[in-house]
Amino acid sequence: MNETLVRHAKPSDCQAIIDVVDNWWGGRRMADMLPKLFFVHFQPTSFVAEHGGMVVGFVVGFVSQTFPDEAYIHFVGVHPEFRNSGLARVLYENFFAAVAKQRCRTVRCVTSPVNKGSISFHHRMGFSAEDSGNVIDGVPIFEGYDGKGEDRVLLSKSLSVGIGKADA
Amino acid sequence: MNETLVRHAKPSDCQAIIDVVDNWWGGRRMADMLPKLFFVHFQPTSFVAEHGGMVVGFVVGFVSQTFPDEAYIHFVGVHPEFRNSGLARVLYENFFAAVAKQRCRTVRCVTSPVNKGSISFHHRMGFSAEDSGNVIDGVPIFEGYDGKGEDRVLLSKSLSVGIGKADA
Repeated sequence: MNETLVRHAKPSDCQAIIDVVDNWWGGRRMADMLPKLFFVHFQPTSFVAEHGGMVVGFVVGFVSQTFPDEAYIHFVGVHPEFRNSGLARVLYENFFAAVAKQRCRTVRCVTSPVNKGSISFHHRMGFSAEDSGNVIDGVPIFEGYDGKGEDRVLLSKSLSVGIGKADA
Repeated sequence: MNETLVRHAKPSDCQAIIDVVDNWWGGRRMADMLPKLFFVHFQPTSFVAEHGGMVVGFVVGFVSQTFPDEAYIHFVGVHPEFRNSGLARVLYENFFAAVAKQRCRTVRCVTSPVNKGSISFHHRMGFSAEDSGNVIDGVPIFEGYDGKGEDRVLLSKSLSVGIGKADA
């Protein structure tokens, strides 16, 4: 059986991912969130998982240029047939190791309050939701964070010594 | 009369810009290209022009993390009534000075072949179009650069000593 290989992203991954990502989300239009610039200019902190020559997962992120000790995960995606396999964890661990090497101490990301699967995945990965003073359905919500009607949950995780190891 | 002030971008600019930018482009949907992450994590190289408390122009860009001596301009926008006023030049010059301080030697950006105004603005700003081996209507085109049917012109400019000065 083929193994799953995780490597740094490259520009040609952009088209390969755009071709599949809307399907991975059940038809929702996600491709607009993945302009080519991420695959050109943020390769050191972006990773792709391949299985049998096919992209089956990816994480796109970067080191904040406003807060150089913080890193930000913009997008993570896993092929539906590869979910619950630990692949998202492996992609995140690659990201954590890459940004820890660049002296980042905090990793941040943002998700939707309705995306309970994403919120619980991030909790399992050691992220906490930032306090917003507005808890709905057990989740602290930042109303309109990403524009009108676009509420978000803000997640963050401290990186500690040894984070590069698969210690969980 | 009010003066136009150019300052670094901040997170709250995102909503203010999303509220107006589609109108600046005659109704085309541009706001999707401006997620909040740019206004949070790329403040050192992103600038906003204000006139009478209103956003009238902005440039969003960053230092490449794959190629640390290169910078990339993701988006520039100017209020229609402030076009041909030299404001886009001032915004670009702020960007050039900010990235030159971070030791960038090249600035890159990407535009559409149909956007003749953008191409000639960039030529006036000292950008050259990269050779693609496929010149159409006098412009070298990278076919499908940003996905199927999304042809692009790739522009680049070398930064030289003194680029931070308004020398043009």
